Amino acid sequence: MDTTAGLVLAVDVGGTKLETALVDAGGRLVTGSRHRRPTGPTRSPAEVTQALGDAVRSSLAAADRPVLAAGVGSAGPLDGAGGTVSPLNLPLLAGYPLREVVERASGLPAVVRLDGTCIALAEHWLGATRGARTSMGVVVSTGIGGGVVVDDRLVTGRSGNAGHIGQVHVAVEPGEEGHGTTLEAAASGPSTVRWARRRGWTGRSGEDLAAALRAGDPVADEATRRSARLVGQAVAGVATLLELESVAVGGGFVAVRHDYVDLVRASVREHAVHEYARRVEVGVSALRGEGPLLGAAALRHRADLLGAPPARPLPV
Amino acid sequence: MDTTAGLVLAVDVGGTKLETALVDAGGRLVTGSRHRRPTGPTRSPAEVTQALGDAVRSSLAAADRPVLAAGVGSAGPLDGAGGTVSPLNLPLLAGYPLREVVERASGLPAVVRLDGTCIALAEHWLGATRGARTSMGVVVSTGIGGGVVVDDRLVTGRSGNAGHIGQVHVAVEPGEEGHGTTLEAAASGPSTVRWARRRGWTGRSGEDLAAALRAGDPVADEATRRSARLVGQAVAGVATLLELESVAVGGGFVAVRHDYVDLVRASVREHAVHEYARRVEVGVSALRGEGPLLGAAALRHRADLLGAPPARPLPV
Repeated sequence: MDTTAGLVLAVDVGGTKLETALVDAGGRLVTGSRHRRPTGPTRSPAEVTQALGDAVRSSLAAADRPVLAAGVGSAGPLDGAGGTVSPLNLPLLAGYPLREVVERASGLPAVVRLDGTCIALAEHWLGATRGARTSMGVVVSTGIGGGVVVDDRLVTGRSGNAGHIGQVHVAVEPGEEGHGTTLEAAASGPSTVRWARRRGWTGRSGEDLAAALRAGDPVADEATRRSARLVGQAVAGVATLLELESVAVGGGFVAVRHDYVDLVRASVREHAVHEYARRVEVGVSALRGEGPLLGAAALRHRADLLGAPPARPLPV
Repeated sequence: MDTTAGLVLAVDVGGTKLETALVDAGGRLVTGSRHRRPTGPTRSPAEVTQALGDAVRSSLAAADRPVLAAGVGSAGPLDGAGGTVSPLNLPLLAGYPLREVVERASGLPAVVRLDGTCIALAEHWLGATRGARTSMGVVVSTGIGGGVVVDDRLVTGRSGNAGHIGQVHVAVEPGEEGHGTTLEAAASGPSTVRWARRRGWTGRSGEDLAAALRAGDPVADEATRRSARLVGQAVAGVATLLELESVAVGGGFVAVRHDYVDLVRASVREHAVHEYARRVEVGVSALRGEGPLLGAAALRHRADLLGAPPARPLPV
């Protein structure tokens, strides 16, 4: 689909909110088109469908040019064929027909991919990994997600779930709880808060951790360093396996400390055995909060970057 | 290069031996063309060059049709542009001009890639991962290596080093030595022998471990189970990240116990968090000792499966 003259409706469905916006072929959000609604583990499918419909219609009302298609990013996992999703952080939405809901609300053909995949695509298109043939986007937030581009093609997987770096196993420190755990369970925002609380820290959120750090709290310091170190360990593994050239690290929890991405980079260098893997560039996401929406739009505007269609296609 | 009517000279350079053979477009070795010479950490570059020249000339003497090109697999890492290699297990060969040596000895244009990459390509072409769009080959031997095919394209990396799964970090059991270690350092043949010896077992080789297992030795049993479990942990990470459809496990150490690959498969299922990753097929390499040579030949016979050329090309 040639979308150079028109707009794409971008939709991002996450664990705490959903967002919609109109995006042009240059990767710019149309003024006044960005809308947000809360999600969360207690929302029913009917409530999400209504919120999504409201946001989609509000975005479409801001169109100053034709809107040609919809691109949708979602928290995972996806269910494979059919455009349905079962986000871990939205348990009431198991098997939710996201593609169909967006198509009905918008009247546009929709394609659904993993949110991490969309972010990797956005960074490759407009962000920190531009110009790298093989790259990765990592998002550290309530969960940890990501996406991979190999040889200028998005890696999707047959059911659309490639990129789930949060569910890769990492080695925690000897004697620590959580042996044999995944990156997300060890190093996400909430996991880091829990780690610090088990060591006597009394805050409750990533914002509390950031404030404690500024006040010189040593547990908050070690907890957040540990998160970055574990992210770096996992990224080093991917850099070794795929010979990544560039990695963009983003997500809300990265803001917990100003040097978070520097610590990730140092950990990648420490954990990468071979020189070729240590050469990977590790940078801050250049797209901040717009990454998920720009990536969802890129599913249409930059269809040339999509990998081969899944064996059982996610219908376009 | 169209090689359908001719033969390819296949060369495999490993830590203990090098092999050469002629391979036709159907993946068959020409009778009498397979030759082997020892390598090893004490051989000088001049000795390896002479052994390689001998083997290459012996193979070429068996040609019954034109030989059109050479494909070369090598222990890694590769040095990037130029076709030179610096195999970890052959320290005297640092910066060894492998491509040039093969070209001089054979009079054929040569291309050099990582041995693990070649094996993944061979399994995709003729072996256990045939028909899968996204797959992996893993070799458990003196070292642990591998290669990855994504969406029917070999993943090479800009310097040809993608696939090094042995240098990915794994989580060993709590309280065990070797925290923060790599898969190869924890689970290769020699590493497994060392693990067992530290627990009082007195053998010295993988063959000794196999014999001890048959005699019911519990340390040999646990040591080899542990190796398979760690390989499975690393494979589960790749299956999660890339949504692998199929994995072929081969290499000399796999023969240490009849159920080694079954134990790898069980570990993959245990470590994969998402259903989509648990669905990966885990099978025994179908190519056994011919995999490295067939993969080297596939660099020429199946050039359609090669990924985009490296940014700084490994000259063809």
